[in-house]
Amino acid sequence: MKLSRLGEFGLIERVRRTTAQGRGVNLGIGDDAAWVQTRSGSCLLTADLLIEGVHFDLKWTSLYALGHKTLAVNMSDIAAMGGTPAYLLLSLGIPATFESEDVEEFYRGIRSLALKSGVSLVGGDTSVAKSLFISACLVGDAPYRPITRGGAQVGDDIYVTGTLGDSALGLRLLKRKSPKLTQRAAKFLLSRHHFPTARVQAGATLAREKLARAMIDISDGLLQDLDHICKASRIGAVLAEETLPLSAAYRSLAGHDGTGHALAGGEDYELLFCARRRDRSRIEKLQGHLNVPITRIGTCVPARYGMTVLDRKGQRISFRARGHDHFKQR
Amino acid sequence: MKLSRLGEFGLIERVRRTTAQGRGVNLGIGDDAAWVQTRSGSCLLTADLLIEGVHFDLKWTSLYALGHKTLAVNMSDIAAMGGTPAYLLLSLGIPATFESEDVEEFYRGIRSLALKSGVSLVGGDTSVAKSLFISACLVGDAPYRPITRGGAQVGDDIYVTGTLGDSALGLRLLKRKSPKLTQRAAKFLLSRHHFPTARVQAGATLAREKLARAMIDISDGLLQDLDHICKASRIGAVLAEETLPLSAAYRSLAGHDGTGHALAGGEDYELLFCARRRDRSRIEKLQGHLNVPITRIGTCVPARYGMTVLDRKGQRISFRARGHDHFKQR
Repeated sequence: MKLSRLGEFGLIERVRRTTAQGRGVNLGIGDDAAWVQTRSGSCLLTADLLIEGVHFDLKWTSLYALGHKTLAVNMSDIAAMGGTPAYLLLSLGIPATFESEDVEEFYRGIRSLALKSGVSLVGGDTSVAKSLFISACLVGDAPYRPITRGGAQVGDDIYVTGTLGDSALGLRLLKRKSPKLTQRAAKFLLSRHHFPTARVQAGATLAREKLARAMIDISDGLLQDLDHICKASRIGAVLAEETLPLSAAYRSLAGHDGTGHALAGGEDYELLFCARRRDRSRIEKLQGHLNVPITRIGTCVPARYGMTVLDRKGQRISFRARGHDHFKQR
Repeated sequence: MKLSRLGEFGLIERVRRTTAQGRGVNLGIGDDAAWVQTRSGSCLLTADLLIEGVHFDLKWTSLYALGHKTLAVNMSDIAAMGGTPAYLLLSLGIPATFESEDVEEFYRGIRSLALKSGVSLVGGDTSVAKSLFISACLVGDAPYRPITRGGAQVGDDIYVTGTLGDSALGLRLLKRKSPKLTQRAAKFLLSRHHFPTARVQAGATLAREKLARAMIDISDGLLQDLDHICKASRIGAVLAEETLPLSAAYRSLAGHDGTGHALAGGEDYELLFCARRRDRSRIEKLQGHLNVPITRIGTCVPARYGMTVLDRKGQRISFRARGHDHFKQR
């Protein structure tokens, strides 16, 4: 079968099915990070690819921002397990035409975030390649029991951190300037696209306090990533469109009705999690401590109801669960 | 500066110099693997890139062999620290024209070696790419104190496991058949090229018995990898050409005088290590236990003498320390 027909998730599912769960593997393929036993403890492992022409375009991004983002997106995967990022391995395929200064700019981007977040770059590999690609592997500590995608229950509330869709609008803005946006709003959206914030403290707190029962980071778009939780937890979900947290910049660019980028935009790197109804007030209080907005956007329902988004009149919004599948033809 | 002038090792050195040694990092950039503290123990981390058109050519290798080799070369890095391979993260850039069966053949190659060696595939990433590339990250246990490249002393003996140069001759054979070789000899050389053996048990035993004072795996060619030990240990080395361990197939293809492939061929994935003179008999005995040839090929000398290879008449063989530098123009 052609990969373009099987798709990225089909391929991952095939690999997962044919891979035995080995000794010491608490959690293998299929979540934000793996959770494995080491000789005397356990750690979290995650890996991400960033490929020129697929994940980024050097027309729209500086190498500094790309370095920063490389680390941020991997940190976000560790955050989604409730872990703490620790060690980075970085492998780069670099076009021979690059100057060493270009590569150093990329590493400066990595370091600027690594220093702030206590991550150490400890190794990797480099080679010449036709176009730039970055392969990162991040090791995280798991001080609390990691939160998987599979623990949500019918009746649980659904939450997200931060605001949604800013990054996707930032990317749109890069390609097509908008006259109706203030400079400040434009800067905000671009920064959300280039310098996503991994919600490490929020993730760790939700794990420590045993508040999140299932968690994922939003990299492929809210609907697609919620679908991952639904499948792993064998539940359905109802979202209330009007509750989706939108930034002022989002509202002024997309208008009050346009939730498309918030629902399916991708690259938000916010946390999406499910929690018991009885923990509502504890979660509300958490916002203040963490200094991160946490918004309740929906409810977990039985799997047979699938995924639904309701507008303010209670009407179903139709959508097809799309998002990024790098193999599928569009 | 153009990367082609700076070179791969120049680039790594620049990155190493500008990267702070973080908390918990026992050993960072610059050895076969990093050695880091986790919450309650320590582990080894290594990463390798394999890029189509740079590291392999699908004309010469099957995807099954490529999968097997991907894991083997990473295991070899862990072996060179005296560690035990445990968890694999695998990121693939795959051309859209690939069939899912191609990808599955690759994973079968991975699994065949993973099962034998107790390694679990726990995650990674996949994406479409213009040409095939593989980025692997392997986590290893460190049951004994890891052996770095930097512990050799003047007067130590220099050893290698197995035989040298077979893999390079195997690659030559793929490109240009040789009529003077028996089918069995050809098969041996090709197998050494396609299915290298990571010397995990030998490495772990040398670490457990505290026999190896410095160790590296030979991936770039004996001379270049010995040069890494010399630089890290601040020593020089004298090798006796006639002691280099050559297989029967090597001798029949290259002739008794041709040690070029053994000295600089690359992709041997044998262990090169230095040990005290007083441990000679213990190391000799080890061969039998391990069922792997271990050959003494030289001596560590003061750094000012550099690296020398002597022929059987005691004459210096001239060579330039070459090997694989993926950025340098040849």
